Amino acid sequence: MPGSDEERMQALRALRDTGIDSPARAAGVLGEIHPADAAEWLQDLDDGDAWHVFVELDTGFQAEILEFADEGLINDLAARMSAGDLRSLVEELPSDDAVDLLAEADERVAEDVLDSIPVEDALVLRELSAYPPDTAGGVMKTEFVNIQRGTRVGDAVKEVKKEGEEAEDILGVFILDEEQNPVGFLSDRSLLTHSIHDLVEDVMVEPFTIDANADQEEAANQIQKYSLSALGVVGPDGALVGVISAEDAAEILEEEAREDIQRLVGTTAKQQTRLPVLVRTRQRMPLMAVTVLGGLVSAKILSYFLGGDETGGDASILRYLPLIIGLAGNVGIQSSTILVRGFATGEVEPEREGAVLLSELTVGTLVGLICGGVTIFIASWMEAGTWIDLFGVAVGTAIAVAVSWAAFLGCAVPVSCRRLGIDPAIVAGPALITLSDISGSLIYILVARQLVGF
Amino acid sequence: MPGSDEERMQALRALRDTGIDSPARAAGVLGEIHPADAAEWLQDLDDGDAWHVFVELDTGFQAEILEFADEGLINDLAARMSAGDLRSLVEELPSDDAVDLLAEADERVAEDVLDSIPVEDALVLRELSAYPPDTAGGVMKTEFVNIQRGTRVGDAVKEVKKEGEEAEDILGVFILDEEQNPVGFLSDRSLLTHSIHDLVEDVMVEPFTIDANADQEEAANQIQKYSLSALGVVGPDGALVGVISAEDAAEILEEEAREDIQRLVGTTAKQQTRLPVLVRTRQRMPLMAVTVLGGLVSAKILSYFLGGDETGGDASILRYLPLIIGLAGNVGIQSSTILVRGFATGEVEPEREGAVLLSELTVGTLVGLICGGVTIFIASWMEAGTWIDLFGVAVGTAIAVAVSWAAFLGCAVPVSCRRLGIDPAIVAGPALITLSDISGSLIYILVARQLVGF
Repeated sequence: MPGSDEERMQALRALRDTGIDSPARAAGVLGEIHPADAAEWLQDLDDGDAWHVFVELDTGFQAEILEFADEGLINDLAARMSAGDLRSLVEELPSDDAVDLLAEADERVAEDVLDSIPVEDALVLRELSAYPPDTAGGVMKTEFVNIQRGTRVGDAVKEVKKEGEEAEDILGVFILDEEQNPVGFLSDRSLLTHSIHDLVEDVMVEPFTIDANADQEEAANQIQKYSLSALGVVGPDGALVGVISAEDAAEILEEEAREDIQRLVGTTAKQQTRLPVLVRTRQRMPLMAVTVLGGLVSAKILSYFLGGDETGGDASILRYLPLIIGLAGNVGIQSSTILVRGFATGEVEPEREGAVLLSELTVGTLVGLICGGVTIFIASWMEAGTWIDLFGVAVGTAIAVAVSWAAFLGCAVPVSCRRLGIDPAIVAGPALITLSDISGSLIYILVARQLVGF
Repeated sequence: MPGSDEERMQALRALRDTGIDSPARAAGVLGEIHPADAAEWLQDLDDGDAWHVFVELDTGFQAEILEFADEGLINDLAARMSAGDLRSLVEELPSDDAVDLLAEADERVAEDVLDSIPVEDALVLRELSAYPPDTAGGVMKTEFVNIQRGTRVGDAVKEVKKEGEEAEDILGVFILDEEQNPVGFLSDRSLLTHSIHDLVEDVMVEPFTIDANADQEEAANQIQKYSLSALGVVGPDGALVGVISAEDAAEILEEEAREDIQRLVGTTAKQQTRLPVLVRTRQRMPLMAVTVLGGLVSAKILSYFLGGDETGGDASILRYLPLIIGLAGNVGIQSSTILVRGFATGEVEPEREGAVLLSELTVGTLVGLICGGVTIFIASWMEAGTWIDLFGVAVGTAIAVAVSWAAFLGCAVPVSCRRLGIDPAIVAGPALITLSDISGSLIYILVARQLVGF
């Protein structure tokens, strides 16, 4: 078995490339690396392979992997789990991860599991799963240490010793009054630095809390803004029902930033580079449909005011220019945004760069071919009243070429910038769109001249 | 003096709106709220006002504010500090924040301060400031607790009690060997849960470390990926020279995400909504210049292939369409991106919404007027060889109108989405650009028809 972490990672990468003959052997190496790396490695396998390796691991390590895994992997694995697999993992996982896992599993299997675990555990999980997943209640943990007023620091430390292993993510304790309302907070650090004889209310700080129904983003922003190690989540009566850790907040903020950026360029919120090419192509279609439709409306408006070829002259073909450069610009900025953020967040590691570029280019070309193909018919029908007309073919062909080319630019520009040590974000937005606009105009005019002639 | 935090915030907001007559009274209220809120309030004041209130606060609270303040505020305040002000703050602040403050201060004043503080402190600060600010060394803290191998947990706890107040951000201790190389890490939580008689090497975990010259983003990604509470920073000989906390990592990741997004849409990395309108307008000019240039190149290419008005017909005016819709699309997406992310990160709180919208609209309109104005001359010269020609005026006017309108869309769409409970990111990207393309085409054709006639 390989010795260092780096050797293990290399062995695993080689295994991924050559195919997994022996899941047990792969699991043997996988069990030796950090669960965060293991989760990442599994995410890049085909579903079936990931599952075959996963089942060979012991439950403790499986649970650790699930804590680091993204939604896609959890979904793949959960769908294949028997009630027995699921039960042992649910018992092992912190409450928030257990709920996420149950949500991705087959509904009937999940129900079986909830019926077979201790009633009080099932009750907690059912309560947690009642909160929408993007609320504070939906992301909180219920494993936390709480201390009643009147306790001394030394006794609080003893409580942490007793409960702390379960509540390992929450780095501090909440102090509650008789109604279970949080009245104070003590970080692990203050538990260490204060005398064990101090009364907790003499050394605690004001607790930060949020309503269980508040948005998860609001909770994460509060943790970030005030540099909190934990945020208390309270129910309608003000009683503490859960806690959100700084670690959870960092994850929420990263996810929300990725979602916003990717939605702004018209892809979905998932880690794009880890999805299959066809899924990515399909996910971009709604935006592409909007862009094609908008471009056709522009063409109609322009030809209404300028007349078609008869009165407008040769240049009237330019009424389709907004459609062509709009589509090309969108696809280019999608590719570049995915790469720029992929570089920044470590989603696209150097050894994945080639594969990511190839897949991104394939997606861009597919999008170009589909949009170009569809436009041939629509433009032909709009211009000539038939399903195939030379001018429509010119517009569609120009789209296919311009969009594929824009996807190439969207990949080539960020990669070259990284190689040259320039911040890709500065060049990959504005300069890229300008380049794509110019080349789109040129491509269209050349294609139209070839096909329609003027 | 107002009683609750909410009342204090309201009093401060009212003060900001009516103007600060008595900095001492404002400071009195400010000193009662959380330093993160105080920093935010000061950031929204005019420079002079922020300073007049700041000097009325006591040094401890000033330092706390600086730990939460953004670069802009630190810069404004540092520039006005005397050597005396600066010295007391540098002594109060953790090393990383002290270095940031010194970097923003007048160079001569900073040198005076470094000469007047204890030699060993000055040495640390000089060493820290030698690292580029975006490296692991540039963001690390030098206040951390380290423990030699062979120590028992109880003695490590004593060490934390002694040093912990200084090193409050690093929630754990590094265990070092004789060469000061980190060989293990113990979180505050494990110090609490393990027996005081355990040897640290029996309970410590593998430490994560990074080279001091590595990119800060790489450091932050490592902390995020492995959910670390602290990352050790090592020098060329492998010895521990500093530590980066999870809190720092969250800040770095937020900053880097904002930078990437804003650069991709062609603005700068700063919190846009907190900058003056003229600064924001100026910062967007480089992208606008690139877009105008690109649009003119497209126009040249199109007219080369299609001929000007003589051979191309009326529709040949469309050769300027890429320029107009390109500019409008850029400005629209800038406004919407700034608002979408501003909503998400809490930068644009509800009570700032009106002011932010107004300023963003003003920036968009100014950009439109400037680009339109400049284009009048360039297009006139390109088309007619004079500095003012009716066709050039048509192009320039269309730009001014289309860009201002796109800025309006870029503000109105995200705000309406938020009101309607729709995720603004889904609509504010693709749909917005399409809308901007269509209206840009319409605006151009109507303006050109009015002015040039066809």
